Formats: sequence, C-alpha cells, structure tokens
Amino acid sequence: MDMSTPITACLVIIGNEILSGRTVDANLSHLAKRLNEVGVQLREARVIPDIEATIVATVNAVRAQFDYVFTTGGIGPTHDDITSASIAKAFGVPIHRHPDAERILREHYPDEQINEARLKMADVPMGAELLDNPVSSAPGFRVENVYVMAGVPRIMQAMLDSIIPTLRGGEEVLSVSITTDLAEGTVADGLAEIQARYPDIEIGSYPMYKMGSFSTTLVLRSPDSARNEAASIEIRTLIVQLDGHLITPELV
Amino acid sequence: MDMSTPITACLVIIGNEILSGRTVDANLSHLAKRLNEVGVQLREARVIPDIEATIVATVNAVRAQFDYVFTTGGIGPTHDDITSASIAKAFGVPIHRHPDAERILREHYPDEQINEARLKMADVPMGAELLDNPVSSAPGFRVENVYVMAGVPRIMQAMLDSIIPTLRGGEEVLSVSITTDLAEGTVADGLAEIQARYPDIEIGSYPMYKMGSFSTTLVLRSPDSARNEAASIEIRTLIVQLDGHLITPELV
Repeated sequence: MDMSTPITACLVIIGNEILSGRTVDANLSHLAKRLNEVGVQLREARVIPDIEATIVATVNAVRAQFDYVFTTGGIGPTHDDITSASIAKAFGVPIHRHPDAERILREHYPDEQINEARLKMADVPMGAELLDNPVSSAPGFRVENVYVMAGVPRIMQAMLDSIIPTLRGGEEVLSVSITTDLAEGTVADGLAEIQARYPDIEIGSYPMYKMGSFSTTLVLRSPDSARNEAASIEIRTLIVQLDGHLITPELV
Repeated sequence: MDMSTPITACLVIIGNEILSGRTVDANLSHLAKRLNEVGVQLREARVIPDIEATIVATVNAVRAQFDYVFTTGGIGPTHDDITSASIAKAFGVPIHRHPDAERILREHYPDEQINEARLKMADVPMGAELLDNPVSSAPGFRVENVYVMAGVPRIMQAMLDSIIPTLRGGEEVLSVSITTDLAEGTVADGLAEIQARYPDIEIGSYPMYKMGSFSTTLVLRSPDSARNEAASIEIRTLIVQLDGHLITPELV
C-alpha cells in the first residue's frame, strides 16, 4: 500500500450526558493514541445527542468522508439506547436479532435476568459483524467502515483491542515534546522560521497557565524520527538563544 | 420571547493536540453547564484540526444550524494559531489589526516583549467585537453568532464569564439524578414505561462499571421541577419493587 496516503478516522460520540456536561468523555484520547500506533489518524470527532435523525445524518456524512468511523455510546438495554437502530437506518438496512449475539447474552446472564430489554442488545443492522465484548458480553458491531462500540470506557477499550489488529494502517506519527519556561509569544517568531524549514513536520505550540505564569510545550509530529530530532535540536537552540530553559512539564 | 423554542449552541474545538490524544478537552463540560444556567442548550460539539479549509467549512455549517457557535483554540501568537484568519475567511471579510486589541496588548506587555507574533493576536475579522480576556489580555472576539475563545481553560472560562450575561436564553433544564445498585438491564423495561408516561422529560440511563460490578445512574432532565419530582418518585418506587437500593454514586 501507498505509505504516503494517510488513513483517516472520525469518532462520533453519541450521548446526551456528554452534551449536558454531566460526563466528561474519556474515549477520544484513548482512541486517538491506539489508532496512531497502527498508523490511522483521528481527524475529527463529533459529539451528538441521542436523536435518531442526528445520528443518521452524522454517520452518513462522516462515513463518506473518512476511511474509518468509530461510534461510542447508546448500545445498552434502555429506551435511550438508539444507536443500533439509527445505524441500521443510516445504511438503509433492517435491524434483526443476531443469533450469535443472542446466544452470547443467554450464556452470560442467568435465566431469571434475561428479559426483553437485555435481548434488545442482540439487535444489530442486517449484515453487521459482531465485535467481541469480554467485559459485559453484549457485543458491538461493524457495518462496512463504521465500528459501533459501547460508551463505558472499560468496555470501549476492550472492544477496541480486538478492532485494532484488523485495521489497515499507514505510518505511525512519532512525536517529540519540548517544554520551556518561555512564553509562546517569545518563541513564536523563531518557531515560525523553523516550521517553514520543516514543512513535513507538524509543530504545535501549547501554552500552559499555572499559578500566574506561563510555560510552553512545543510538540513535533511526523513519521520520520530523524527529521523530528533535527528540528528539535533547532528548537532547543532557539530556546537557549532567547535566554529560556528546558523544563520538565510535571515540575511546572 | 417564546419560552418553548429551545435556544441551541454548538462548540467547535479547534486543535491538533485534542485529536492526537495529547490533551483532553476540559472546555466542553464547563461550557455546557454555564450555557444551561441561562437556558441555552449545547446540542453538538465538533473537534477539528488546525486546517483552514476544515475550520471554514465547519464554522459555516454550524453557524447556519445553531443559534450560537462557540470556538476554542488557535488564537495565540504562534504559526499554528490560524483560527482568526479562518473565521474571517468563513465570513468572507478581511482580517485587520483591531486598534483596541493592539492597545490592550501594548499596555499588557513590557516594550521589549512586544513583537510581531504577539501583535498578531490583535488581528481579527473586520467587524468583529472584542471579548475581554482578564487573564492574559489578548482578546477573543465575536462575529455575528460565532464566539471565538482561547483554548486554555482558565482563559476560556474568563472569556465565557463576560459572554454569558449577553446571551438570549430559553428555559434552564433542571436535572435529578438517581443512582441504584441495579444493572441497567434490570430497570430497563420498567423505565421505558415511565419514560412513555413522561414524554416531556428526557430520562437518561448511565451504567457505571467498577471493580467487577455495575451500577446505574438515571438522570431526569426537563425545565419543570414538579414533573421531574413526580417521575423520580415513580423511578424510586420501581427500584424498590425490583429489590434494588438507592445508593450514593460517590460510594460506588
């Protein structure tokens, strides 16, 4: 495969509880890092409510635009879990009770705990492939390039473990971080010159603000560790020329 | 104004550092809660990279769709801070050095620290209104219904403090939370019946998984506290009927 074409992904976070501010998403950061290890770049994320029309429109927009789409949330047993039905609608296929998923649920739950709500978790779009859930048994699923996972981080991570080896990836992006006690505005002009000489490296500048003083972390990202190292030497030299110091972020 | 028409908002989080997993966003949750206090509902959030074409397309899509749009990130002094120029492009207006913003920066920084990079923070779209930044002086700005804020949480929060009183809001959504040691699948069928009788209340069910066992938090949200209370009594009764207990989430 062509290593120069980036493989892209989008995360769709489905859940009113994120948009109300009640719950802080913990899945984006984990997904981004795991995808990067296999050379897939997370390029966008959308947080949307538990509304069927919104899920359908969003999934259809992003599955045409990115190589992979991952969704989290809304595949549990309660009335507000409408992701599976919405994904079926997005693909224009009926939903059906997957026999393997039903068997998995019946094996997992004692007889007296099997009810219609729990069996609903076996309903997936026609043609979907199940994704293993070693934590709580109810599977996720894949339809074409759309991977539908649970929102509970522990379960999402377990599902992702089995997805990752199946992805077609590109090059892993390697990063180098440099933190200084200089403010962003002090390094900015020199940094722009270095960025201009290294157009193949994405150089990000991230200010931190703690106890009334600023520090800055510069992050270099590219698949080429030698190029990253060359640029980072120039940045360290710039910092020293500006009477700054390299510092350990944890000590800021 | 018509209290029954919800006032909606979208957050656009601009920053490669969020999409790489390096930084976990801390602004969404804060914004959602502050907006709700004045009756504005956060209905979507998008996390996008520092790419001009993406910022332009995203901002133009969401500003037509929601009453208010808030952006965070990319208004600092470094080469990767391209939000202001991108917003100008989205609105089809030139960027200019705002005289008040330049004066604010020149008053804030000692003469020897004023450089072209820092003055770039005074460049805003023509016609933009400045947003006060009491933390680090460099202002945010507003163009029509788009509010452009810093990404550093401390600064974003300070900017939001001055925006909040200016927003045209609807009804605040009030919420009641009930946590039980029952699993989601156990309460699901009864909960769906209660939801059917209270279509005006958004009832969410959120499983937690800790040390091998599940608990569930049920959240009722509506502007009507009496309706919330009536439905929550029915939910507490359901939990007791199912041999469950009400528990304190912190003790789970």
